[in-house]
Amino acid sequence: MTVQKEQLEKYAELALKKGVNLQEGQGLIINAPIEAADLVRTISAKAYGKGAKNVHVEWGDEVLTFLKMKNAPSEVLENFPKWKADGLEQMVEDGYALLSIYGPNPDLLKDIDSERVAKANKASAEALSGYRDYIMNDKTTWSIVAYPQQAWAEKVFPGVSSKEAQNKLWEQIFHITRIDREDPIAAWDEHNDHLRQAREYLNQKQYKKLHYKAPGTELSIELVEDHIWHGGSTHSDQGTEFNPNMPTEEVFTMPHKYGVQGKVTSTKPLNYGGNLIENFTLHFENGKVVDYSAESGEETLKYLLETDEGAKRLGEVALVPNESPISQSGHIFFNTLYDENASCHLALGKAYPTNVQGGPSFTKEQMDQHGVNDSLVHEDFMMGSSELDIDGETKDGEFEPIFRKGSWAIEFE
Amino acid sequence: MTVQKEQLEKYAELALKKGVNLQEGQGLIINAPIEAADLVRTISAKAYGKGAKNVHVEWGDEVLTFLKMKNAPSEVLENFPKWKADGLEQMVEDGYALLSIYGPNPDLLKDIDSERVAKANKASAEALSGYRDYIMNDKTTWSIVAYPQQAWAEKVFPGVSSKEAQNKLWEQIFHITRIDREDPIAAWDEHNDHLRQAREYLNQKQYKKLHYKAPGTELSIELVEDHIWHGGSTHSDQGTEFNPNMPTEEVFTMPHKYGVQGKVTSTKPLNYGGNLIENFTLHFENGKVVDYSAESGEETLKYLLETDEGAKRLGEVALVPNESPISQSGHIFFNTLYDENASCHLALGKAYPTNVQGGPSFTKEQMDQHGVNDSLVHEDFMMGSSELDIDGETKDGEFEPIFRKGSWAIEFE
Ligand SMILES: [Zn+2]
Ligand SMILES: [Zn+2]
Ligand SMILES: [Zn+2]
Ligand SMILES: [Zn+2]
Repeated sequence: MTVQKEQLEKYAELALKKGVNLQEGQGLIINAPIEAADLVRTISAKAYGKGAKNVHVEWGDEVLTFLKMKNAPSEVLENFPKWKADGLEQMVEDGYALLSIYGPNPDLLKDIDSERVAKANKASAEALSGYRDYIMNDKTTWSIVAYPQQAWAEKVFPGVSSKEAQNKLWEQIFHITRIDREDPIAAWDEHNDHLRQAREYLNQKQYKKLHYKAPGTELSIELVEDHIWHGGSTHSDQGTEFNPNMPTEEVFTMPHKYGVQGKVTSTKPLNYGGNLIENFTLHFENGKVVDYSAESGEETLKYLLETDEGAKRLGEVALVPNESPISQSGHIFFNTLYDENASCHLALGKAYPTNVQGGPSFTKEQMDQHGVNDSLVHEDFMMGSSELDIDGETKDGEFEPIFRKGSWAIEFE
Repeated sequence: MTVQKEQLEKYAELALKKGVNLQEGQGLIINAPIEAADLVRTISAKAYGKGAKNVHVEWGDEVLTFLKMKNAPSEVLENFPKWKADGLEQMVEDGYALLSIYGPNPDLLKDIDSERVAKANKASAEALSGYRDYIMNDKTTWSIVAYPQQAWAEKVFPGVSSKEAQNKLWEQIFHITRIDREDPIAAWDEHNDHLRQAREYLNQKQYKKLHYKAPGTELSIELVEDHIWHGGSTHSDQGTEFNPNMPTEEVFTMPHKYGVQGKVTSTKPLNYGGNLIENFTLHFENGKVVDYSAESGEETLKYLLETDEGAKRLGEVALVPNESPISQSGHIFFNTLYDENASCHLALGKAYPTNVQGGPSFTKEQMDQHGVNDSLVHEDFMMGSSELDIDGETKDGEFEPIFRKGSWAIEFE
């Protein structure tokens, strides 16, 4: 199979309609690798067809990223251009939607000194924090879709030609994002409805804590008061419905930054800034990582945790059943967008303010009082498996099953 | 022939060494179409190898340019983002060299309303005028090299497969830029030496006027007092020798903005902002175009001339002999970088301040007094042929032959 124009068109349509839900007269920022030119061009043509006033493409190239990370002096790496951050911020303030096309080489920076990578990541996170706040508070619509870049495809499907690997990965992407259905848009509506039922159930329950049990994991996570479960489509400040991630199989809410106890062991690799961290365990006391180890990438994990105070605490707790199409595919994708939607996961770092009542207008002090974590980073890591049980603890101290053996213990319609 | 890695490496080396002459610790801006990724990556790796502190690539894509020109509302087209102009200006102020990789589709915008294109071009020229002043005054090193983008190659070599057209154009590019020589760097040193002899001869002569005669052309051009002929390599403010254009076959100086009389007829198409203007005639009185006509693209010519007051006057007079390798190739390239170096040419619009003694520090008033033209545009057009004769008029009113039948009438070493 070579990617068919027809499928690419459907994928572009899905990204615009169910992803960012682009409105007439709106601008669109597309972050994309130059390798994804065919998809970017298809999306752009459709965006103008829907009345976009402008499509601004921020092109990237991993080969150049690698060369810069390897060679540039640290004062350059640590100096993210302010003019670029200003430009991006101005566009989202002007109502531009943001679509990221994502398919990084999971091993891109594996031979680069982790400290250099960490410093560069931190500098860009700092420079882009205003822009990122805009996005994370859903002040505009935004979405992430995958593109099977060659290096990524080769990692997921080793041992075949790179063309074949890309085709296989396209096939997976089209299956998982429901492009191979008769009517992908209708399939997404139905899927969003399922996620809505799960989140409404959990929102009503308002569990005080979640208790996790699996091999290598024994963890209790307090949820913030008045927490909100999100999942599937959500709404921007302007009231536009959109899907931030495609695929998305999770419902997620906000852990209390001071309320996590016990240990958790990852079940899939975490790709942080081009480096893989594998088979790692984190020990929490009062919400903070006090000890950790990793079978590989421990140095990278160290730099991630040391980014700032908030990087050692959780910002997201997400439930994904084993029946998710990504989980069923049996593949490890080495790509957070895909792997996080195959597995229950947690995130280190910044919480989504929209996961608590009133969150988007909290001051820094209110955030801390409510247990809302803040950080320059937000990194999902996977800890779900077919052996994971989760109980919810009610305000009365009763325990109710939520997950058993990696699947919902609750019946939805 | 498919482009060989070895030739691409030589071309990249030439661009860095004889083009921008990148220095250790310097930054580099590369303007490039995404189609030229192989060359951009090769150049970037070499640039870091030479100690570049950063390589910033401004990627472009003609498909997106076309979509925007076709669809975006005029307030978007007329609003070049200030943050981007600021960013580019900051980099050149910080000493970055600028390398443009250039190979546009000559027909890209032929179906787009010329007025829209003209307004967009004017807006970007205005926004980038500070940046451009930096470049045109040689405050940093800069260079332009070609890349055989598919659409361009198909225009130059119609009737063959697009792969074959690209290969043929690569072959021409490598021949014309002397990459096929044993030692391209040494060949460029020798070529620069020939151009140096021509410009030194003319600098000593200090002709008051040039008189042009050819079919459709009868033109006299006064040169500004204390004019300087440039050609081949030049020096930046920091004293770094560089070649602004690769190829370059011209010696050129500054016409007096009020001192052009008669008519001139173009001999090759002019590609202005994605539109071709062909077989056009300009009538000058006291330096200003007072009448014009074109066999095709007259509307585009109109918008070019009406950009501003200076767009109706000349900013460059350049001599290129018929023996130039580009002229000898017999091809029309529909690309100013190539065609201007096949033919004597003139430019409408802004003059290079470095073409007159003290020019870079002139005030606006001094510029006008000396006859230095200013404009938002600078557009070369070709008017050389094997039938062109040029005489120089000395300060004493004597006429001396400079060109006969399109070739130098003077013997150099
Ligand atoms: Zn998540
Ligand atoms: Zn997350
Ligand atoms: Zn010229
Ligand atoms: Zn010129």
